[in-house]
Amino acid sequence: MRPVTPETSAEGAPDDGISRRRLLGTAGAVGATGLVLGAAGGAASYAAAEEKPTALATVGSTGIAFHGRPHQAGITEPQQAHGHLVAFDLAPGAGRKEAAALMRRWSVLAGELMAGRPAGDSDTGVALDAGPSSLTVTFGFGRSFFDRTSLVAQRPPGLDPLPSFSSDRLDARRSGGDLWVQIGANDALVAFHALRTIQKAAGEAAGVRWQMNGFNRSPGATARPMTARNLMGQVDGTGNPKPSEPDFDQRVFVPSGGDHPWLAGGSYAVVRRIRMLLDDWEKLPLHQQEKVIGRRKSDGAPLTGGTETTELALDATGPDGKLVIPDNAHARISAPEQNGGAAMLRRPFSFHDGIGPDGTPDAGLLFICWQADPLRGFVPVQRKLDRGDALSPFIRHEASGLFAVPGGPRKGEYVGQRLLEA
Amino acid sequence: MRPVTPETSAEGAPDDGISRRRLLGTAGAVGATGLVLGAAGGAASYAAAEEKPTALATVGSTGIAFHGRPHQAGITEPQQAHGHLVAFDLAPGAGRKEAAALMRRWSVLAGELMAGRPAGDSDTGVALDAGPSSLTVTFGFGRSFFDRTSLVAQRPPGLDPLPSFSSDRLDARRSGGDLWVQIGANDALVAFHALRTIQKAAGEAAGVRWQMNGFNRSPGATARPMTARNLMGQVDGTGNPKPSEPDFDQRVFVPSGGDHPWLAGGSYAVVRRIRMLLDDWEKLPLHQQEKVIGRRKSDGAPLTGGTETTELALDATGPDGKLVIPDNAHARISAPEQNGGAAMLRRPFSFHDGIGPDGTPDAGLLFICWQADPLRGFVPVQRKLDRGDALSPFIRHEASGLFAVPGGPRKGEYVGQRLLEA
Ligand code: HEM
Ligand code: HEM
Repeated sequence: MRPVTPETSAEGAPDDGISRRRLLGTAGAVGATGLVLGAAGGAASYAAAEEKPTALATVGSTGIAFHGRPHQAGITEPQQAHGHLVAFDLAPGAGRKEAAALMRRWSVLAGELMAGRPAGDSDTGVALDAGPSSLTVTFGFGRSFFDRTSLVAQRPPGLDPLPSFSSDRLDARRSGGDLWVQIGANDALVAFHALRTIQKAAGEAAGVRWQMNGFNRSPGATARPMTARNLMGQVDGTGNPKPSEPDFDQRVFVPSGGDHPWLAGGSYAVVRRIRMLLDDWEKLPLHQQEKVIGRRKSDGAPLTGGTETTELALDATGPDGKLVIPDNAHARISAPEQNGGAAMLRRPFSFHDGIGPDGTPDAGLLFICWQADPLRGFVPVQRKLDRGDALSPFIRHEASGLFAVPGGPRKGEYVGQRLLEA
Repeated sequence: MRPVTPETSAEGAPDDGISRRRLLGTAGAVGATGLVLGAAGGAASYAAAEEKPTALATVGSTGIAFHGRPHQAGITEPQQAHGHLVAFDLAPGAGRKEAAALMRRWSVLAGELMAGRPAGDSDTGVALDAGPSSLTVTFGFGRSFFDRTSLVAQRPPGLDPLPSFSSDRLDARRSGGDLWVQIGANDALVAFHALRTIQKAAGEAAGVRWQMNGFNRSPGATARPMTARNLMGQVDGTGNPKPSEPDFDQRVFVPSGGDHPWLAGGSYAVVRRIRMLLDDWEKLPLHQQEKVIGRRKSDGAPLTGGTETTELALDATGPDGKLVIPDNAHARISAPEQNGGAAMLRRPFSFHDGIGPDGTPDAGLLFICWQADPLRGFVPVQRKLDRGDALSPFIRHEASGLFAVPGGPRKGEYVGQRLLEA
């Protein structure tokens, strides 16, 4: 038995008593009433209700609910230490029926895995001993999915192909895909186990198109949960919309009442494998590196002063009369105020696939951003960055994907059911 | 400032007060006397001595000493969550002098990095915010190093090439190397930062030959520190020699008084990239998987009963009169009793380099084993496994390395100094 501490997000609909009880495995003596948890203090009373108190540390014991939330997990949750991205194409001959069966299988499995339970009788045992470790499994549909399933009428314009950008160096074999799965967890074996389980459950219905591995800082490596750093050494994530802001949902999630009701509560994920040209970057002196972004490297504060959370003083000039945050600084160009309010939630993983024969690291950012509409998020910002970002000489976009990620499944529902059974 | 909690191993000579004080960075008010720590309680008094108490959690704050220990770090320390293995070849034209300068640079850097300090003025900042996170950096010399540095007379017979085994499928480009560096840490960015720092410091003296990434369970993902699991789902490491056993040192470390005094306190690392054929393995029913090893998958206990630490009852037979632990079971064949006492300390990382175009994962074990003499460790055991291990159909040795790893450097000394300046 691997007991879990369910994490009830403020926005999450409370889970039902029965599925929570099942989380307890053999703890049959506990009545269902004791298991209905409020958003606060839930973890503590949950642990107290157990027959044997769990000795799992927080890293292992934190579990995130798959069902019963307005949005899929893996979007607003803290970035995990390990990530796997995998895209699948439906098998030749597979259509809507096979896709529906696959999404049903995957959703059942994701629910079990995220609760820290084994994936049925043939579980490989790789995740044994650990708790759910904040595992999230998130599913999305690519543009081609709708052709393959004869659902073109249901395809939202948000899935129109991204424009090409002048700096694109995209590898088609590592781009696109009918289906996309994002896996994140705070334990490497839990994440690998989920990837392998999802892949095997694809069976004859779909095959892997591409797969990428990523990582973030380990829980406990820093003094407190902090904004992530990337492999250029920058604090990365500061300017993100915050769930506490009134327009957060509007920016990140597809509203209900639109033309495509199946996508209500969902989001669009733009995925870019962005290689960092670290040899060139690291040759740049610190003060120039900081001008490239417009923020200090040490703590992410704007070059115009303050702390990480201080606003950029975009008009401030230095003693030389020049802008302190240069015209082409990445944080200036990408800011919503500079893009008619266009905003996205960036939730990336770093990647490092070894050192190539030329001695340069195959490393960078698995950039993932979430928005209610790519045309009011990634596209206008990337268009502008493409024209004049000071960061451009140091990065290379090598792969690209755009996926419509449905809202969270209700209990008993599978992801995409409202599309596939409409 | 990234304060650290030095970890004084029972065997480790205490570090000097001055270098510990430097760990405190700006905490100049603290007298050196307050910094001489015993093996127990050291962490607490160290933290208390600080101006501002550190809020770093254990994962980040644990630091391991580089200098002043009889053996290099990274051999007996607990396996870390992230590992990088990298082999270098000396540049054309580089010889003993360049190698000595390189080892000196690397040793200084390793000491700084393992203490959680930045790597000089040009530090990339990637490890900022985190503590040392149990970073270890371990250096070894391959057979070819001695040709390149005209030190063939100093080359120990332990570096004679490993025999070929019938099941070898070795890729020469990912095998061997003049120099080998093993990096382990409990934070991915700390590990990456160390790899990148070490690689850049090679400068003109040496170039990367091959590089591999690995991982283990995260601290805190399991209820208590447990024996690792590998990607086949097995508990892996149970039979390892224990530091508490009287013959541990004799098995793992090169004694002093031998023909090659520079290697006293050192060890030999055998490194094998072993691919797991997971599609085949996972098709095998659980009870057959367990017979392949001779131990239960759930908890690693012998098939003859008991718990993980119970001895294998190698002669026990079942109701059918057959051996319970089959003749070709991996744990039987590899046990020291079956190999004239040959033993090694296995301290591997798992690897997963993505899913190949054929859909099979490029995953397995970065097998690393440590022994006083490869001919009384890896070689006889692998010879026997090669002939009849039930595990053989499910694994493939894809790369190989053998490195002589000198003892721990004294304060002010660099790794290999006793060889290179003899
Ligand atoms: C490897 C590539 C990239 C790196 C290293 C990088 C790094 C950074 C850094 C260090 C910041 C400042 C701190 C922060 O607010 O997070 C930032 C801000 C930002 N970046 Fe990037 N970025 C990259 C690519 C992109 C791309 C492709 C986009 C979108 C097209 C993007 C959009 C943004 C946005 C919207 C902000 C926040 C601006 C604000 O609201 O203040 N970035 N990035
Ligand atoms: C991917 C390849 C391998 C896997 C999955 C594997 C797995 C295991 C497992 C599950 C055990 C039982 C638990 C334990 O004592 O740790 C074990 C034991 C052992 N293995 Fe392996 N092993 C592999 C390769 C090797 C190789 C190449 C060697 C050395 C040539 C080796 C030497 C040993 C030894 C010495 C033991 C302990 C036996 C004892 O003292 O009881 N293994 N291995």
